[in-house]
Amino acid sequence: MHTISEHGCFGGTVGFYSHLSEAVGLKMTFSVYRPPQAAKRRVPFLTFLSALLCNHQNFMIKSGAQRVAAELGLMLVIPDTSPRGAGIPGEDADWEFGASASFFVDATQEPWSRHYRMYTYVTQELPQLICAHFAADQRRQGIFGHSVGGNGALVCALRNPQQYRSVSAFAPVVAPSQVSSGQKAFLGYLGPDRSRWAEYDACELVRQRPYPGTILIDQGTADKALAGHLRPDLFEAACKEVRQPLSLRMQDGYDHGFYFISTFVEDHLRHHARELAHVAE
Amino acid sequence: MHTISEHGCFGGTVGFYSHLSEAVGLKMTFSVYRPPQAAKRRVPFLTFLSALLCNHQNFMIKSGAQRVAAELGLMLVIPDTSPRGAGIPGEDADWEFGASASFFVDATQEPWSRHYRMYTYVTQELPQLICAHFAADQRRQGIFGHSVGGNGALVCALRNPQQYRSVSAFAPVVAPSQVSSGQKAFLGYLGPDRSRWAEYDACELVRQRPYPGTILIDQGTADKALAGHLRPDLFEAACKEVRQPLSLRMQDGYDHGFYFISTFVEDHLRHHARELAHVAE
Repeated sequence: MHTISEHGCFGGTVGFYSHLSEAVGLKMTFSVYRPPQAAKRRVPFLTFLSALLCNHQNFMIKSGAQRVAAELGLMLVIPDTSPRGAGIPGEDADWEFGASASFFVDATQEPWSRHYRMYTYVTQELPQLICAHFAADQRRQGIFGHSVGGNGALVCALRNPQQYRSVSAFAPVVAPSQVSSGQKAFLGYLGPDRSRWAEYDACELVRQRPYPGTILIDQGTADKALAGHLRPDLFEAACKEVRQPLSLRMQDGYDHGFYFISTFVEDHLRHHARELAHVAE
Repeated sequence: MHTISEHGCFGGTVGFYSHLSEAVGLKMTFSVYRPPQAAKRRVPFLTFLSALLCNHQNFMIKSGAQRVAAELGLMLVIPDTSPRGAGIPGEDADWEFGASASFFVDATQEPWSRHYRMYTYVTQELPQLICAHFAADQRRQGIFGHSVGGNGALVCALRNPQQYRSVSAFAPVVAPSQVSSGQKAFLGYLGPDRSRWAEYDACELVRQRPYPGTILIDQGTADKALAGHLRPDLFEAACKEVRQPLSLRMQDGYDHGFYFISTFVEDHLRHHARELAHVAE
């Protein structure tokens, strides 16, 4: 693991790192916020999955989450949103597919299947790396995300409820199988068999296996993608069907950006801290 | 005034705007955070002057100041750091001089004197524009800044104590006349007569006319520019000479960036709110 840079922040440390990923087969970058408590003991940690066009930096720079993470003793881990430099022709050409748009799946289709294995990277390799290098407690993990990363977080938690003991999302895509950007990505990464898509679709998954805890979602009403790509109503209906506890908060006048996230990130971190407090250290 | 974009944030609004500036003679951009209280009454406002390489966006995106501004009912105003597109050959070539490095002076030397009039822009035109378009109270203004913008804020406050009733700075340049980057800029903008330089040098000004209030400065000890361009020791000595109240806080392990600023911005906003509370509405 290579340290790119480290910076004092709210009594802890923001750091940017790179490593050669086994799962992805390429160099991957990520960022970590270590709260002051991590100097003395292992602390719970939250993985944040970012939106299209983002990388491992955006949330760390723009969310303001470090203040609350320092108060609550939560470590924050932000992976990149895709492999970079896989050498696939056109990988940077489409903002909704390819680089920075992995949708956090393990691709099964050529040429993506060789490197685009972000689901395994996020759920297995990265947490192991974090616990090996930092004072993170692998038994107390939560996950959250934004937009496409919101679907990624919901998918990771719904498929691994024993690993992720808390989950939340900002303006998540919740039904990628039902919206055009998700369909394009899933067709490209997973092929035409829609039964494979369900493994990465929060609405499909929650129907099959509800999550043993409350899911927190904030969604701005002024978000231009609300009625098109996001569709929280579909997730609300799916949760209702299976009696999944859901706190879906429609936030009046907020859009899809980081001014929205920064406004509500404190509530999310407090939600995670409460849920993780139930897990024995 | 043209609205570029507006975004809900902590119950108020982050906005980005442009206008044709009379002082500068070019289009200028700036950002404003309007706290929720501004929907009902005129509120105090703080101008923030940014560092080299920055524009009107960095502080709004990275500082996390909106949360505290919303609590305290403070409006935040962030101008750009220089004119843009003045058409001066090489204006973008040097990161320490020209575009994004105006040093917030009114240039007197050709070819800069035509457009590089940021001191007049910041202290006169922009506050008038803000009070004309937003619910800002011109009697309750404070100013703060970072690095070169920290010197700018100190200069504006020291020269206009009746206008700026509170002042603070993050890792300010305090003696531009004594450090190489400042000397290069002042020679270019103001010419070789060093008596003109003193009008824009915080250390020189505080000796001539101390500020009627406490000056708050935070400075990280891991800041690579500390011993070279920043030199808070020079300002501390100047303040001591004239018994200027100064709260200079050396922050252990913090560097020059926004993780440092975001950690301490709450203290700065509370400092300004306290000072401005003494001013009659």
